[in-house]
Amino acid sequence: MTDGRRAGGNGVPELMDAVHLEQDGGPLVVRRIPVPEPGPGEVLVRMAAAPINPSDLGFLAGSYTVRRPLPVVPGFEGSGTVVAAGRGLLPRLLVGRRVAVAAAQGGTWAAYAVSTALRCIPLGRHVSLEQGAMLIVNPLTALAFLDLARQGRHAAIVSNAAASALGRMIIRLGRTEGVPVISIVRRPEQVAVLRALGAEHVLDSSEDGYAAGLRELAHRLRATLFLDAVGGAQTQTLVDAAPAGSTIVAYAALAGEPSVFNARTLIGDDKKIVGFYLGHWAAHKGLLRTVRDIVRVQRLAGTDLQTTVRRRLPLSAAQEAIETYRHDMTAGKVLLVAD
Amino acid sequence: MTDGRRAGGNGVPELMDAVHLEQDGGPLVVRRIPVPEPGPGEVLVRMAAAPINPSDLGFLAGSYTVRRPLPVVPGFEGSGTVVAAGRGLLPRLLVGRRVAVAAAQGGTWAAYAVSTALRCIPLGRHVSLEQGAMLIVNPLTALAFLDLARQGRHAAIVSNAAASALGRMIIRLGRTEGVPVISIVRRPEQVAVLRALGAEHVLDSSEDGYAAGLRELAHRLRATLFLDAVGGAQTQTLVDAAPAGSTIVAYAALAGEPSVFNARTLIGDDKKIVGFYLGHWAAHKGLLRTVRDIVRVQRLAGTDLQTTVRRRLPLSAAQEAIETYRHDMTAGKVLLVAD
Repeated sequence: MTDGRRAGGNGVPELMDAVHLEQDGGPLVVRRIPVPEPGPGEVLVRMAAAPINPSDLGFLAGSYTVRRPLPVVPGFEGSGTVVAAGRGLLPRLLVGRRVAVAAAQGGTWAAYAVSTALRCIPLGRHVSLEQGAMLIVNPLTALAFLDLARQGRHAAIVSNAAASALGRMIIRLGRTEGVPVISIVRRPEQVAVLRALGAEHVLDSSEDGYAAGLRELAHRLRATLFLDAVGGAQTQTLVDAAPAGSTIVAYAALAGEPSVFNARTLIGDDKKIVGFYLGHWAAHKGLLRTVRDIVRVQRLAGTDLQTTVRRRLPLSAAQEAIETYRHDMTAGKVLLVAD
Repeated sequence: MTDGRRAGGNGVPELMDAVHLEQDGGPLVVRRIPVPEPGPGEVLVRMAAAPINPSDLGFLAGSYTVRRPLPVVPGFEGSGTVVAAGRGLLPRLLVGRRVAVAAAQGGTWAAYAVSTALRCIPLGRHVSLEQGAMLIVNPLTALAFLDLARQGRHAAIVSNAAASALGRMIIRLGRTEGVPVISIVRRPEQVAVLRALGAEHVLDSSEDGYAAGLRELAHRLRATLFLDAVGGAQTQTLVDAAPAGSTIVAYAALAGEPSVFNARTLIGDDKKIVGFYLGHWAAHKGLLRTVRDIVRVQRLAGTDLQTTVRRRLPLSAAQEAIETYRHDMTAGKVLLVAD
């Protein structure tokens, strides 16, 4: 009875299809593995969709902040329907609801996944399961950055890798909250795309005079919060361009090489470089703020926090999905969807 | 009457010998220039002695945090006797007193210098003018670092370039205040010197296994405050070795090349790199803390904050003094003294 129903009912089988990473760098394969059991405070979700994010690429390469023993089911977020509950009131209340989830045990690139009930976001009727699949990683990061801007009284924000889904959310949230955003992209076409989105300040780092232009604009707008997804030599340009007292937030390392900065600039102008990891931020922000962010994400899901989807592929095509995404990371998300 | 006395008396001449930097990199020359006039809240000091610090070398090369238009009189600190006062009660009270000074207008490598009265440290009878000449830059920096350790609840400190005068003060202050200090030096001989001084934890960065040893020791002692005077590739080693949540304080750039770090380490472990400049720290700490630090420096002048002097040279031999100091920066201070 390899595919038999559980004793407990709910139509949950014993085994499921799941994407497996068996060695750093892949390739990804699909295996039949046991459906995980939700522990106390957790729920089991029948997955509808899960996106591929930049963080997933780092995770697959074995170079990400978070490492888990191999073999492992990848995927940090997704959406689906709660089909079983672990011990606790909140898990039981969620049964039958459509939710956005962050993976707790194992990952979301599987037919079923377990999530902490408190970190599930119930989806309103106006939010599709597809949009709901991308409501955790990028939206909570964008909200955290706007919180950092408010807490640090930063008059404006600088954001690189700005044509990404996250970069676009930062632009829209900044506009909604009245915080000017200077967006840095790498290609002229991306300038046009972001301008069409309504972005006011877009700089192309491949252009002559980029560094001087960034410096001038950052000083004029008093932009003292720099969000750095790139690292490498880009960090040095940001640190040098930043007004005195600026904070450079390192939150990803897309350049894939060590970050560089001029210590004299950091010293003479009281600047700092601070690491940011959403997992730690979320763990420390407390219940009240967690609930407030869930409400904000629900409210903005159809507008500021919307993400464009380029392609949908089944779990069995996970490796192809990765390659499609890697080929052009700013053309829209690639989703893994239930067969 | 080129060397005539001033109308106002006090035996202050109109002209004085002063060391001049006329182009970045030197050489230093001695010029006859007007004795500066103390403004409101300032005093005029007949200089007895002034040290050469690492910050002076950067200043002479034109690569320091602080830049002033050339030609300029170098020298950030020194000691002497107050011979004239600008407007205000405090300046008048200081007339006739032996003081440690930080230069306000112009520098201290001259026969006379002007200092803000509030930043003068009157010297107790037990403190020589020679020791008094070195009571501002390094002692106030060392006290600031111990304050940072206390404020940030850091259980222990890591300090590099630790055979320097400042590095030795950090070791002694740490012992007095019960904060373990891990000192990093570059040569085996320096390990022996610091051990003789009573340093418990000394690591030689030229030894095999240095990085792993630093990491192990920093984790064991929960050393989460890293004082980085070096920069360059050393910064990457410190960031990688630091326990989660650590602060790396960049306060000098002795390596003379861009600092490097691994963004993933900064992100995954909530670390940060913060610029520190004594001038800004001093400007922001307020009157009460300034006075408290003056009292602390006076109290510790003969013990924890003592500095070894290697050689005394007159202003006219300033260029030779620089070369002597640069030749071996950890063998003791070189002082410029009144003829």
